[in-house]
Amino acid sequence: MTRSITIALDAMGGDHGPSVIVPAALGFLDKDQDCRLILVGRDEAIRQHLPNAQLPERLSLQHASEEVAMDELPSRALRGKKDSSMRVAINLVKQGEADACVSAGNTGALMATARFVLKTLPHIDRPAIITSLPAINGRTWVLDLGANVDCEAEHLYQFAVMGAELVSAVEGSSSPTVGLLNIGQEEIKGNEQVKEAHELLSSSDLNYIGYVEGDDIYLRDDLDIVATDGFVGNVALKNAEGVAKLIRHFMKVEFKRNPLTKLSALVALPVLKALRRRIDPRRYNGASLLGLRGIVVKSHGGADQVAFENAIAIAKKEIIADVAGRIEQRVGRRLNISASA
Amino acid sequence: MTRSITIALDAMGGDHGPSVIVPAALGFLDKDQDCRLILVGRDEAIRQHLPNAQLPERLSLQHASEEVAMDELPSRALRGKKDSSMRVAINLVKQGEADACVSAGNTGALMATARFVLKTLPHIDRPAIITSLPAINGRTWVLDLGANVDCEAEHLYQFAVMGAELVSAVEGSSSPTVGLLNIGQEEIKGNEQVKEAHELLSSSDLNYIGYVEGDDIYLRDDLDIVATDGFVGNVALKNAEGVAKLIRHFMKVEFKRNPLTKLSALVALPVLKALRRRIDPRRYNGASLLGLRGIVVKSHGGADQVAFENAIAIAKKEIIADVAGRIEQRVGRRLNISASA
Repeated sequence: MTRSITIALDAMGGDHGPSVIVPAALGFLDKDQDCRLILVGRDEAIRQHLPNAQLPERLSLQHASEEVAMDELPSRALRGKKDSSMRVAINLVKQGEADACVSAGNTGALMATARFVLKTLPHIDRPAIITSLPAINGRTWVLDLGANVDCEAEHLYQFAVMGAELVSAVEGSSSPTVGLLNIGQEEIKGNEQVKEAHELLSSSDLNYIGYVEGDDIYLRDDLDIVATDGFVGNVALKNAEGVAKLIRHFMKVEFKRNPLTKLSALVALPVLKALRRRIDPRRYNGASLLGLRGIVVKSHGGADQVAFENAIAIAKKEIIADVAGRIEQRVGRRLNISASA
Repeated sequence: MTRSITIALDAMGGDHGPSVIVPAALGFLDKDQDCRLILVGRDEAIRQHLPNAQLPERLSLQHASEEVAMDELPSRALRGKKDSSMRVAINLVKQGEADACVSAGNTGALMATARFVLKTLPHIDRPAIITSLPAINGRTWVLDLGANVDCEAEHLYQFAVMGAELVSAVEGSSSPTVGLLNIGQEEIKGNEQVKEAHELLSSSDLNYIGYVEGDDIYLRDDLDIVATDGFVGNVALKNAEGVAKLIRHFMKVEFKRNPLTKLSALVALPVLKALRRRIDPRRYNGASLLGLRGIVVKSHGGADQVAFENAIAIAKKEIIADVAGRIEQRVGRRLNISASA
């Protein structure tokens, strides 16, 4: 590349807006030597969080007068807010001024806007959202996480193809394994879409390992990618967050029960910290929108500085691995192969 | 009742068969003063696990020559194994010789056989499977867990009605709250079935609190029952098991890291035990098949003695609360009300 890697940040998105995203940008640049970042949003709101209101090296500011609210209807954001920080950040990718954008804003609006501005790749009917979750083998990638609630078999197949390209690009693995999420009962196993997708995947050149169940996401050490529809994927993701929070809650209650248990918490503190780090959702923050002509990363709306920095790092990884370009090349080839098979 | 409560146990079902179920029956009777149990299965296989091959008081044996395999197709089990331990146990309920049956066998075969032998209640299109999961408020009940993979709005509504009757009967609460599982994105929120079910539930006399998300199952303290289709429910259930097991695995790894962390595990042992008890899946073992003319409880296939005893205890609770009768009465009334609304 002639210029350095550039990432546009929707500075107004998320529950905390610039109060988290500006420090995250500064923190990221502190640790990173290559990237340039562009903060997109209201000039004065952003400067308020900069030391002496000054921009350090490799950080620039692109004013955008509007903001998309977290609960705003995607269609309204798309039609009514052409100068939103989210839209302008995506425009920078479209115009080639940024290599990727990161937003903690409203997922529906981000997907709708990114799809409208960047367009989908050839052969891809629907973009999907993918993220990695903690697992016994380190991580398992799951998609779709909510972009598509009603999926046909062909869509599930496309998700698997896109997921495989992302993972092989980001992790440098040549042939990551793909499982199709299903329920474990014979005969009534799965609905029609899942059964058809199973046929498509079985005859593809993907490293398909067959049906997997909800617990396999975390426990199977030979599983890299899980494909499912956006309704099921979203429920599974939220469900996992809920279980982890519940267990943390129970641990707190039990460790605070009496002076003796409080003392034991003190003794166990290093272990508890190590455990927390392993399942820290901030380490897994950053979901990628796949199937678009450009790289868009969605951060959790409630992300703090550490979590948002992680989402920026994911965008950088995808840029270096040229994920969008690879998906474009290979998906076309793979889907053509499958169509002629 | 003229005779004491009687529960038929499919002694051959589950991963461990009579080696777990016979001791569980003995253990249950030890603690319980009212019930009679009938062990159903191959005479000699059952007697092998009885002290001196003798039946103690309140325990009887009903020979059945066949067994349903854990991976057997439900339709084959139904047509081909008329003398299976599962079928004979369900027959005892049909004939009025038992008030409920408990099986750790193949879920699909159990549902198909129970439905064929006992029949569904009037106004109920499809039976559903319900269980309780650990939650911040003690427990949350979730249905359906896998009996129905493609559901229309009316089915989701019926699940909610049945779930509400079960919970109000078993817990003695007058008006338990019901949530409809959905994903959190505005506009593309949910698929058509979910949106329609939302309308049905909103105009019903249930204590409906609206859409809930995957994490709410564990974290919302005002939520008693979550209705969803069997595919999503099954994935959520397995997913929760997976996350809990993963966290336990990480805890073990961290506590075993070095002599110091091992020592801290020793100190924290009482707390860790209390924590394990809170999320012990054995305490939540026992899922109820709802919507049938009779009480059928499904135990986890891998249940140990403690877990299977818990499933028997759930069957007893349902018998005392007359769950099937209550559902029959109220579901009819509620569904008629909704139909005329």
